[in-house]
Amino acid sequence: MAPKNVFYAQSGGVTAVINTTACGVIETARKHRDRIGKVYAGKNGILGALTEELIDTSRETASTISALRHTPGGAFGSCRYKLKSFAENRAEYIRLIDVFRAHNIGYFFYNGGGDSQDTANKVAQLSDAMGYPITSIGIPKTVDNDLPCTDNSPGFGSVAKYVAVSIKEAGLDVASMSESSTKIFVLEVMGRHAGWIAAAAGLAKEEDGDPPHIILFPEIDFDTTRFLNKVKQTVRRIGYCVIVSSEGAHYKDATFIADAGLKDAFGHPQLGGVAPVLADMIKTAHGYKCHWSVADYLQRSARHIASATDVAQAYAVGEAAVEFALDGKNAVMPIIVRLPGKKYRWRIGEAPLEKVANVERMMPRSYISRDGFGITGKCREYLFPLIAGEDYPPYRNGLPRYARLKKIMVEKKLKKFSV
Amino acid sequence: MAPKNVFYAQSGGVTAVINTTACGVIETARKHRDRIGKVYAGKNGILGALTEELIDTSRETASTISALRHTPGGAFGSCRYKLKSFAENRAEYIRLIDVFRAHNIGYFFYNGGGDSQDTANKVAQLSDAMGYPITSIGIPKTVDNDLPCTDNSPGFGSVAKYVAVSIKEAGLDVASMSESSTKIFVLEVMGRHAGWIAAAAGLAKEEDGDPPHIILFPEIDFDTTRFLNKVKQTVRRIGYCVIVSSEGAHYKDATFIADAGLKDAFGHPQLGGVAPVLADMIKTAHGYKCHWSVADYLQRSARHIASATDVAQAYAVGEAAVEFALDGKNAVMPIIVRLPGKKYRWRIGEAPLEKVANVERMMPRSYISRDGFGITGKCREYLFPLIAGEDYPPYRNGLPRYARLKKIMVEKKLKKFSV
Repeated sequence: MAPKNVFYAQSGGVTAVINTTACGVIETARKHRDRIGKVYAGKNGILGALTEELIDTSRETASTISALRHTPGGAFGSCRYKLKSFAENRAEYIRLIDVFRAHNIGYFFYNGGGDSQDTANKVAQLSDAMGYPITSIGIPKTVDNDLPCTDNSPGFGSVAKYVAVSIKEAGLDVASMSESSTKIFVLEVMGRHAGWIAAAAGLAKEEDGDPPHIILFPEIDFDTTRFLNKVKQTVRRIGYCVIVSSEGAHYKDATFIADAGLKDAFGHPQLGGVAPVLADMIKTAHGYKCHWSVADYLQRSARHIASATDVAQAYAVGEAAVEFALDGKNAVMPIIVRLPGKKYRWRIGEAPLEKVANVERMMPRSYISRDGFGITGKCREYLFPLIAGEDYPPYRNGLPRYARLKKIMVEKKLKKFSV
Repeated sequence: MAPKNVFYAQSGGVTAVINTTACGVIETARKHRDRIGKVYAGKNGILGALTEELIDTSRETASTISALRHTPGGAFGSCRYKLKSFAENRAEYIRLIDVFRAHNIGYFFYNGGGDSQDTANKVAQLSDAMGYPITSIGIPKTVDNDLPCTDNSPGFGSVAKYVAVSIKEAGLDVASMSESSTKIFVLEVMGRHAGWIAAAAGLAKEEDGDPPHIILFPEIDFDTTRFLNKVKQTVRRIGYCVIVSSEGAHYKDATFIADAGLKDAFGHPQLGGVAPVLADMIKTAHGYKCHWSVADYLQRSARHIASATDVAQAYAVGEAAVEFALDGKNAVMPIIVRLPGKKYRWRIGEAPLEKVANVERMMPRSYISRDGFGITGKCREYLFPLIAGEDYPPYRNGLPRYARLKKIMVEKKLKKFSV
């Protein structure tokens, strides 16, 4: 009998290194041709399994697959689609099994955050619940760094490095201009519920007085008066003030700062953006000239400044997923385990999916300074190793050479299915 | 008699490589100790000359000065202060001469854009107008690339590279998510009057269908209907649409898109931002899910992804300024001259300050595609060499090691002067 094929899919917001994980999965599977057939990648995540849109990665050359290691975005497409429970939508699970059976798929690798690990966990139960033998391994990925059990989540280290480097650079810019012009710079970063990305900006501060001077976390309720006072004190002491805010920073009543009522000319609420709201607030209160930036997708796709540690870990979790499957494991996720000792060392461990699914890990209070506007030494100790090392992509004509896939689809065998 | 000292100052918005130019000036001056005394840097540009706040660069070590080569921002502080004419404010010129005389300054090097070259030109006339012998050399710098006479302006190549790399990366991100989520990404870049920076994003497009799909230039009047149609066509054809807009993009009546009436909760006009306005416009018209980013200072301080060509040219204009002065030249600015031939080669030339001062160079119409939403082959040919090569700063603990100056001030000899 032909060895079973793999279904691999990318889920949720993509990162600078989710393709590195894909590379780890595919290259490792190719080393075990006796026991693993082809790796089929779902087009647009789990949707590709439901619609039977499978990209045949065996049609890509070794050098294209190798180039995935340094290519940002999600090469096979991603989605924000969450499978319902068996009870709610049994038809979807039946369809998954039909597709898996039609294409001899015995391994399900799902690369994503907390929601995706829930999906992987549900698929793992298909063997028992529906009598189809499938090995399901979740693979961690999220810039938000909010997965439990693991030391950190692949994708986070690179966005952390981008944010720390960017704020170090922009801080020097503001400092140059502050005496006669701009005194305030606000950078908005991702993080709807957890402040890990904003926290990483704190790594740029090497000496007293260095930027960033204020960090706003979703974990700390926003207080306008305290914030505006801190801004004024900082400008008086340092001459300027650099602020980093999580997009999810909010008031005590849970209202996002970004939802503070910005309206367009027609009175429609304006699309988000905490940075302009904060800049407006400061300008109105203190009259300082402000500049602001919203990094948005630039931060999570910035492969050009990826963390070498993050790249290595992203590859390792992909590799481990295949090895776990070959070892007969099921319903688990490879995790990063930080080893004891002063020098940062890590190894791959494992966590059961039921412990990972749908759990969000916030910043511990001990990582946030007492005044709520910065990070502690403990937090810096945790974060620094994650941004260590540079892993530059190759360049041609001044631009990174990113992988271009042929994306040849596997021939469909089933009837159409509407999602 | 002691050789004359140099006054060097940084003016206007800073760049990723203006300190590279400072490094070129100081290192070259140090090679000619027989003919050039010390290099005094104005604290906050020309303001430092007026207030007699001079930073003694001779107190910095060779390795600190060398590190300026890879340090973004303006190490000595910059300003947006324009000297008035002799007639309007003779007192300022008398003060400049008093400061120059008190500190034996015989060379004036002013590093900036069009306004700053005007200042350098006025100072050059001091010799004749006020009987004080001074050699004044302008040194080009502006991310806007709008200086005339020179092939390009140091500072531009690096922001161009940042924008092209970022849009290539973010484009891959949007493409991954477009089928089930975000279909639109808008990046706002600098350029109040000239669209050069936005144009550079166009370099990311290597094949038909690649992002960016729409570029908005200040040189082309914005037409809402044409824009929204182009967005819809692009989404229908490609599945998503990546837009890059100059901050200065405007309607036919000169109203900035960014000023389209965004108001905060109190009805105050909101601080700029063309990206959120465009995203809002698209969401309202077509209902697409949009993401947007405002790069702001991140783009012009992004030394981590500087263009090697830009770094080399920024150093060369600093070096040339000193050499010009030693050659007895006055009232000139070193320029970049592009040599004929298929391979990009350049040399340093010179232009009289009177031809440079206060002239803004816009994008030629032949560089913008017929529909006004993209760049032409001719433009690509011009731009590509300017982003060529990487020049990474050194890193420690995952972060770039940027220069920290002691900034020891020269002792004041004169009475206080109020600016």
